[in-house]
Amino acid sequence: MAIKIGILGYGNLGRGVECAVRQNPDMELKAVFTRRDSGSVKILTESARVCPVEEAPQWKDQIDVMILCGGSATDLPEQSPEYAKLFNIVDSFDTHAKIPEHFAQVDASAKASGKVAVISVGWDPGMFSLNRMYANAILPEGKDYTFWGKGVSQGHSDAIRRIKGVKDARQYTIPVEAALEAVRSGSEPELTTRQKHTRECFVVLEDGADAAGIEEEIKTMPNYFSDYDTTVHFISQEELDRDHKGIPHGGFVIRTGKTGWEKENRHLIEYRLQLDSNPEFTSSVIVAYARAAFRLASEGQSGCKTVFDIAPAYLSSRTAEELRASML
Amino acid sequence: MAIKIGILGYGNLGRGVECAVRQNPDMELKAVFTRRDSGSVKILTESARVCPVEEAPQWKDQIDVMILCGGSATDLPEQSPEYAKLFNIVDSFDTHAKIPEHFAQVDASAKASGKVAVISVGWDPGMFSLNRMYANAILPEGKDYTFWGKGVSQGHSDAIRRIKGVKDARQYTIPVEAALEAVRSGSEPELTTRQKHTRECFVVLEDGADAAGIEEEIKTMPNYFSDYDTTVHFISQEELDRDHKGIPHGGFVIRTGKTGWEKENRHLIEYRLQLDSNPEFTSSVIVAYARAAFRLASEGQSGCKTVFDIAPAYLSSRTAEELRASML
Repeated sequence: MAIKIGILGYGNLGRGVECAVRQNPDMELKAVFTRRDSGSVKILTESARVCPVEEAPQWKDQIDVMILCGGSATDLPEQSPEYAKLFNIVDSFDTHAKIPEHFAQVDASAKASGKVAVISVGWDPGMFSLNRMYANAILPEGKDYTFWGKGVSQGHSDAIRRIKGVKDARQYTIPVEAALEAVRSGSEPELTTRQKHTRECFVVLEDGADAAGIEEEIKTMPNYFSDYDTTVHFISQEELDRDHKGIPHGGFVIRTGKTGWEKENRHLIEYRLQLDSNPEFTSSVIVAYARAAFRLASEGQSGCKTVFDIAPAYLSSRTAEELRASML
Repeated sequence: MAIKIGILGYGNLGRGVECAVRQNPDMELKAVFTRRDSGSVKILTESARVCPVEEAPQWKDQIDVMILCGGSATDLPEQSPEYAKLFNIVDSFDTHAKIPEHFAQVDASAKASGKVAVISVGWDPGMFSLNRMYANAILPEGKDYTFWGKGVSQGHSDAIRRIKGVKDARQYTIPVEAALEAVRSGSEPELTTRQKHTRECFVVLEDGADAAGIEEEIKTMPNYFSDYDTTVHFISQEELDRDHKGIPHGGFVIRTGKTGWEKENRHLIEYRLQLDSNPEFTSSVIVAYARAAFRLASEGQSGCKTVFDIAPAYLSSRTAEELRASML
């Protein structure tokens, strides 16, 4: 019988989860829950319902895993502990500094209800975290590097859009190839923020806006741009819509380390993602962990888990025997 | 208290395990067991004993995890089921086709004794397997590729050394850059054996040997070389000893796949290893899984496990809280 999935929140991530569920024949989307007028929300899956979020509790026994597709700033800190009282859940909480606090709140809630909650699932946090952890366990003496991009940073794009005179904008984070090569050499370089990434901005101006002033304002913006080498291109709305409508992302997790009695041998472990669609890939990871959440709950487990706590085999639709025979 | 480690078999892998244990302060090497005259085996760890393999059973209560460093052809099929009767064990059984059979035998033995046995640990099988599995679970619609090298193939080097007139030889397996690029493009190419890897051989001849004949014999050797583009270099023993004494290896596990309602978005997941020392890296993976074996056994688990069955956090010396705070 298929694993019955619910989606809470139908933005880019929710739509991504819907698409990912369709690619996994052992899963079935039952319902999408929205805070918007549910009549106005059109989904792709004909067999699934769209319901107002208030009705979610009534679906308690008809949904195996509820996937929370809200944002980390305000939605998930409230929703994850709340919905873990009723459902097995998966979220993609990505405010790294607040993960311990989020974990504690969700864990208390899920332990009390006997449900499984998997938090901070996606690629960073998520697959990148896993790769950092495995590489550190294997090579205890070494150095970690994470590079992001080439990809769209929503936060940086928003920051540009808030500047007076800017109509629209898209910002790409780009890893510096020379820094990547220095890391891969095993020399364990110390790299500054500026040495690791550059920022490229495509900006559509309002009529009569001051291009030079806006370029200066972007390049000197504290936290967002002032520590980076930033390039600004002014383009038309048509060009932005045509050439920059995707949400690509990706990056590299690299650890170099030494082994041997005299630490005479060097090793490189590199994990790389190159993603056409950040939300769809994130969703694909989430859906694999929804399978794991369902199985862990079926075994009687409860409480909050992260990618570190879940044995890989739980993610796969194949049996342990099939995995050993085909992938080991 | 440190996890007490035993090593069975003191070749390249056994020495690698000894070095890796030294890099993990929560572990302690207690003894090395050898089939050779134990008085003639010199190890690096002053505090550890060297014992004849017959004495291993007497160490039953003094060793938490016995690491089996024998070969997959004849040693491990006998040793792993046998030693799992007495110890928690880790092995690096790497005959992919025989893993299901090996698993069944070790599982029966470890379940009967209440011990934990982790088999087929290293990088392939091992970390490469994990990456194949994770990537398949995340991107159910896609295609897998594994490339090996640049690295020394012991089996191919041995095959050359068996040719009459060859004094010594070293063979490198090299992935074809154009094939890697074709795979990374997401075009999901079908690649022949010849298109994926080339083979480079460094050969020392006996005095008066027929170079042209030997080159021809290498290049046309069935199974080993005839399906590849092979280059043969004749060099002196001094050159071989000076330039080719290392045992580097590595490779790439790549999966490309599609997501989206119309499968309109492509993604690339790539895991890469570049290793100065194949046996030392393999040993480093094994030692991390020895920690996991100890912990699983401490929780009362038993039976045979593979890398698919073990939650990542078990590999790390850090607590779950530390991992969440520092690596997620």
